[in-house]
Amino acid sequence: MSVNTFGRTFRFSTWGESHGPAIGAMVDGCPPGLALSEADLQPFLDARKPGTSKYTTQRKEPDQVKILSGVFEGKTTGTSIGLMIENVDQRSKDYSEVAKSYRPGHADYAYDAKYGFRDYRGGGRSSARETAMRVAAAGVARLVIPEVKITAYVSELGGDEIDRETMNFDEISKNPFFCPDAWAAKRWEKLVDDARKAGSSLGAVVECVAEGVPAGWGAPVYAKLDADLAAGMMGINAVKAFEIGDGFGAARLSGEQNADAMRPGEDGPEFKANHAGGIAGGISTGQPVVCRVAFKPTSSILTPVETIDSDGNATEIRTKGRHDPCVGIRGTPVVEAMMALVLADHKLLHRAQCG
Amino acid sequence: MSVNTFGRTFRFSTWGESHGPAIGAMVDGCPPGLALSEADLQPFLDARKPGTSKYTTQRKEPDQVKILSGVFEGKTTGTSIGLMIENVDQRSKDYSEVAKSYRPGHADYAYDAKYGFRDYRGGGRSSARETAMRVAAAGVARLVIPEVKITAYVSELGGDEIDRETMNFDEISKNPFFCPDAWAAKRWEKLVDDARKAGSSLGAVVECVAEGVPAGWGAPVYAKLDADLAAGMMGINAVKAFEIGDGFGAARLSGEQNADAMRPGEDGPEFKANHAGGIAGGISTGQPVVCRVAFKPTSSILTPVETIDSDGNATEIRTKGRHDPCVGIRGTPVVEAMMALVLADHKLLHRAQCG
Amino acid sequence: MSVNTFGRTFRFSTWGESHGPAIGAMVDGCPPGLALSEADLQPFLDARKPGTSKYTTQRKEPDQVKILSGVFEGKTTGTSIGLMIENVDQRSKDYSEVAKSYRPGHADYAYDAKYGFRDYRGGGRSSARETAMRVAAAGVARLVIPEVKITAYVSELGGDEIDRETMNFDEISKNPFFCPDAWAAKRWEKLVDDARKAGSSLGAVVECVAEGVPAGWGAPVYAKLDADLAAGMMGINAVKAFEIGDGFGAARLSGEQNADAMRPGEDGPEFKANHAGGIAGGISTGQPVVCRVAFKPTSSILTPVETIDSDGNATEIRTKGRHDPCVGIRGTPVVEAMMALVLADHKLLHRAQCG
Amino acid sequence: MSVNTFGRTFRFSTWGESHGPAIGAMVDGCPPGLALSEADLQPFLDARKPGTSKYTTQRKEPDQVKILSGVFEGKTTGTSIGLMIENVDQRSKDYSEVAKSYRPGHADYAYDAKYGFRDYRGGGRSSARETAMRVAAAGVARLVIPEVKITAYVSELGGDEIDRETMNFDEISKNPFFCPDAWAAKRWEKLVDDARKAGSSLGAVVECVAEGVPAGWGAPVYAKLDADLAAGMMGINAVKAFEIGDGFGAARLSGEQNADAMRPGEDGPEFKANHAGGIAGGISTGQPVVCRVAFKPTSSILTPVETIDSDGNATEIRTKGRHDPCVGIRGTPVVEAMMALVLADHKLLHRAQCG
Repeated sequence: MSVNTFGRTFRFSTWGESHGPAIGAMVDGCPPGLALSEADLQPFLDARKPGTSKYTTQRKEPDQVKILSGVFEGKTTGTSIGLMIENVDQRSKDYSEVAKSYRPGHADYAYDAKYGFRDYRGGGRSSARETAMRVAAAGVARLVIPEVKITAYVSELGGDEIDRETMNFDEISKNPFFCPDAWAAKRWEKLVDDARKAGSSLGAVVECVAEGVPAGWGAPVYAKLDADLAAGMMGINAVKAFEIGDGFGAARLSGEQNADAMRPGEDGPEFKANHAGGIAGGISTGQPVVCRVAFKPTSSILTPVETIDSDGNATEIRTKGRHDPCVGIRGTPVVEAMMALVLADHKLLHRAQCG
Repeated sequence: MSVNTFGRTFRFSTWGESHGPAIGAMVDGCPPGLALSEADLQPFLDARKPGTSKYTTQRKEPDQVKILSGVFEGKTTGTSIGLMIENVDQRSKDYSEVAKSYRPGHADYAYDAKYGFRDYRGGGRSSARETAMRVAAAGVARLVIPEVKITAYVSELGGDEIDRETMNFDEISKNPFFCPDAWAAKRWEKLVDDARKAGSSLGAVVECVAEGVPAGWGAPVYAKLDADLAAGMMGINAVKAFEIGDGFGAARLSGEQNADAMRPGEDGPEFKANHAGGIAGGISTGQPVVCRVAFKPTSSILTPVETIDSDGNATEIRTKGRHDPCVGIRGTPVVEAMMALVLADHKLLHRAQCG
Repeated sequence: MSVNTFGRTFRFSTWGESHGPAIGAMVDGCPPGLALSEADLQPFLDARKPGTSKYTTQRKEPDQVKILSGVFEGKTTGTSIGLMIENVDQRSKDYSEVAKSYRPGHADYAYDAKYGFRDYRGGGRSSARETAMRVAAAGVARLVIPEVKITAYVSELGGDEIDRETMNFDEISKNPFFCPDAWAAKRWEKLVDDARKAGSSLGAVVECVAEGVPAGWGAPVYAKLDADLAAGMMGINAVKAFEIGDGFGAARLSGEQNADAMRPGEDGPEFKANHAGGIAGGISTGQPVVCRVAFKPTSSILTPVETIDSDGNATEIRTKGRHDPCVGIRGTPVVEAMMALVLADHKLLHRAQCG
Repeated sequence: MSVNTFGRTFRFSTWGESHGPAIGAMVDGCPPGLALSEADLQPFLDARKPGTSKYTTQRKEPDQVKILSGVFEGKTTGTSIGLMIENVDQRSKDYSEVAKSYRPGHADYAYDAKYGFRDYRGGGRSSARETAMRVAAAGVARLVIPEVKITAYVSELGGDEIDRETMNFDEISKNPFFCPDAWAAKRWEKLVDDARKAGSSLGAVVECVAEGVPAGWGAPVYAKLDADLAAGMMGINAVKAFEIGDGFGAARLSGEQNADAMRPGEDGPEFKANHAGGIAGGISTGQPVVCRVAFKPTSSILTPVETIDSDGNATEIRTKGRHDPCVGIRGTPVVEAMMALVLADHKLLHRAQCG
């Protein structure tokens, strides 16, 4: 069974390959009466789109999204919303090598093992191009949760971390790395440049903070808010790890260090810390929801890697073409998108049960 | 909406609170004709049950599972399998303090915020007692995937890691910590003892390896095998982080370090490394599936913590009673269980689509 | 894949065979804070239970339901509600004939074809005993929709219809047939008696009316309120047909005859007819929701029927034992139950999307 | 919650309104390696498309389907299949009357009650135009079940039934009514013509037979093959009733009349009758699956009908424009489509559980 749909109540489904005529999404379950136009979605796609700096792939995809249904006189009707982006920059490229050999780190071998063959052009369905539709769908999700402010940023690149003392969210849009630390952004220029020139690539950690989530979203047991976030984030291409709150760090604290003590506040309780990342027992506590996501280094590298071909013979492969030296950078808007999609779904889930 | 069901094709649902008459599960979608009796499930429940050493809670729950349906003449019939464990050791205890005040780290406040009130006896539905039913359901799942061997163990406790050079799976059953490193197990005796005596608690990291998973299980995009594992693991009580393969470590590698080079093997490809943890593009590669899960320290501690009561007044709370000083220890069989449940589901999902 | 769960937001799952130790259900997604005790469920089970008149099976099942979870201090907590009925009257009977031969009209052959074998005791999972748990779960669903009044009744038995001019809902509880027409009930006594004595059985049509459903429940396209009702009703044992409103009769009307003209009313529109059965485009109109369900005659009859045994040899079979001469009678509370379950689900679905 | 997706394992989702730029579908879960091109889908769309005779609407929609993803080198890849049809014949029409007043029989009032407003152009999402995408998706489903032959036909139109003694499937394609009885087709010409000229409309009954379905598809309890068929068929626009096998007729038979006696056959059992319509206990028996579906008369009629406007004032409405005098006719390919979609899903469901 193939599953190209995400969500329970606010759901979206995606289709399309990087080298087909278009990619698309359908958003289902959206409340009626929300003002929606293409202009609400495009800025998020522009943030993710390739070719915006020399630190990302030089492919040129304008990624102009069209709304094909579900909106009437500028408002969502409550029916399914069809979204589409036409593929533009598909260079006619020689794929004979990729067709024959398995690129380590990519899904080439796994797809062949599963399906018997694969669409090898630009990674087919396993291409991160699919994430453009998550970003578009999330543009709709954001309208469902106007009370929430979501901010994602790269907190570590190639092992080099930001300085949390001096970080500033205003910096995020001022550099090509979604980096909240101007000094780190400076250092990363060289890091990424060096990696690219060496035919290598780098990993990154992306952090995401959602402010304004009220206490009570989420659910116990199998739709825990953090479990759904984990599923959403781990489903992003190249993601290998997920933490909520202190994550692995919490495993090194004592019980009393880890307790987020509560004090009476103006407007509900105040917490003296947020080790939990805003979620307890799968349900939001009213604190900011904070998670962290690890992106592996881009698997498409110029440096030759040992592999086998589809006949099982030893060979090696270098992946030419225009690739992101660090997929984590352009993954940042996608992390934001998955946060928005999960929260919109949980807002509606909560309303279904608790009114 | 409350979601007490997990899985897509092989599914299970659970019900029950720690202080009700019983807890139960229903397993749905199980293939017919598998030999199944209570004796197939009990050993896994015994591994998880409390009171087996002085390093876990001293509650005595025999956790005898009964099969109430879905089995005829010793074989699964293909219909839903009802499982039940009667609750035995519910001490009539004074819950007046917990009823009134929110225990930091617990779901008390979040439940109240969501539902308006809560079953405060022993944590109600948020009690880790629910995980006994996952372990029981997983006993059925294991019969679906006889080709797979699953091993989970504590790889770090209170910040103290095992030695991976000398670790040995044979050790796991020889100490009360599911620890594959005899020396570490020795050290942990004191660590846990000290924490308990100090009215404190410890976190842990549990690692899980599934050997024998064939290439091709999983799916692209939104039912990625690693995304489903993440959702399953993050849904376990007290879990705060999930990694597949190198996880956060992968974000610090270069592309060529992270590539799992392939060589021709006897029986399909051989991989020279397993940074990916056995999954590429959401689909298994035939390598061992390896993941890591972080458990926060037990939130129920004797040390007083600042909190508020349900009227919003400042107070403090110490959680008396018989609690695990480190929930990660007894979480180990639960991690194994979720691995089995996810893999059984994906085996059937794969068969549905690909025959 | 076996599917023992029904519903989208308000969901229930059932397990159990007629000859196992118990049958059970889990209700999920129920709103918190509803007053619920076993006394709320038992009257509906009593209405369905066998042995209440000589016109139904003489098996004695007290069908005492127990609530095992999800309720605290008399109120639903929002977590999963475990329900169970212990099986009592399982006569140790000789099943050797049923084990060997396929009873026409029953699922015996189909189960063997699907699963390779079957639990032949009392029909196993295909027994209508399962419907007791739907009735129990519906007792919970009714609490979710206090604004709705549901009435089901037998409108035709063995081809003999009620008189719609003189029918009176007050009569329904006064005869053993859930018949709103006292004269018809009188005639049916003899009809059913004759059938039973002849070793035969009879079919029936059950009609169900839900008053108080507000306009706006349901959804376009694939969760149409009538489509969900159809799925619910067709899933009841022995049901072979479903109509909403005029049903097949609508196919014989002209467009202007079938139009439910609207006039201004006190409190929203007034309709001059209800050919549509209260649903247009899958969404409720505020009129009573009216549907009709056909039950085939009981397949278990004393009259011998030609069949084959599991080795493929020709034989014949007569089904001894205590069987309902007309399953449609005791099907009536089950039809009511499915109506309640579908409406409760759609109330929450509507709230999720439209607030 | 809006649900624009149908199916469990083989699933499809649709989007689009009749007056938007396009309508589309996504097929998910399709097995890999099936030969698929647009030419496999177009004939089914051509059978459904408007304007093929004077007995259907005179709108001209070429309904050319495009495959946008999920196919590579002529074969399905196992990933999601994007389908799209551009809307062509949207006359710029005056919708001011429909915008203001509720058309009885249509979903106008129900949509307003649910969503607060509606896309009134051509019925918006409630237009039967959506069914074109079911037909397209079903073209894919048919490839999954090559062993099954599906035939649907109009068995009754305006109350005038075919002669079952002389009916002949070869006739179905020879008249504009999908009628297997040449004499009836002749009579229906006048019936439909008269209705159209009178500004009226007619209902119809469509029957569907699936031959070649092996014994064992389907499932007990809540995914009964007949319950899923009922949900699928009742979800088609204008459908008001569903029968499997003898349907309501079965309620008038005695137990022995209704029993489908079994005899040893060459190749599995032979049945002496098929009152059950090929399904017992929710599972196929190997006999033809036979169902019947009632379409109400077209609600869009020229004859004025009393109604109210959106301000609640009394008015009347006549629906001008190019409408089918009998929607059941063009509903026939849609009934076939839903049969194919449900069977494909159940083939994969069966394979998931039973291998």
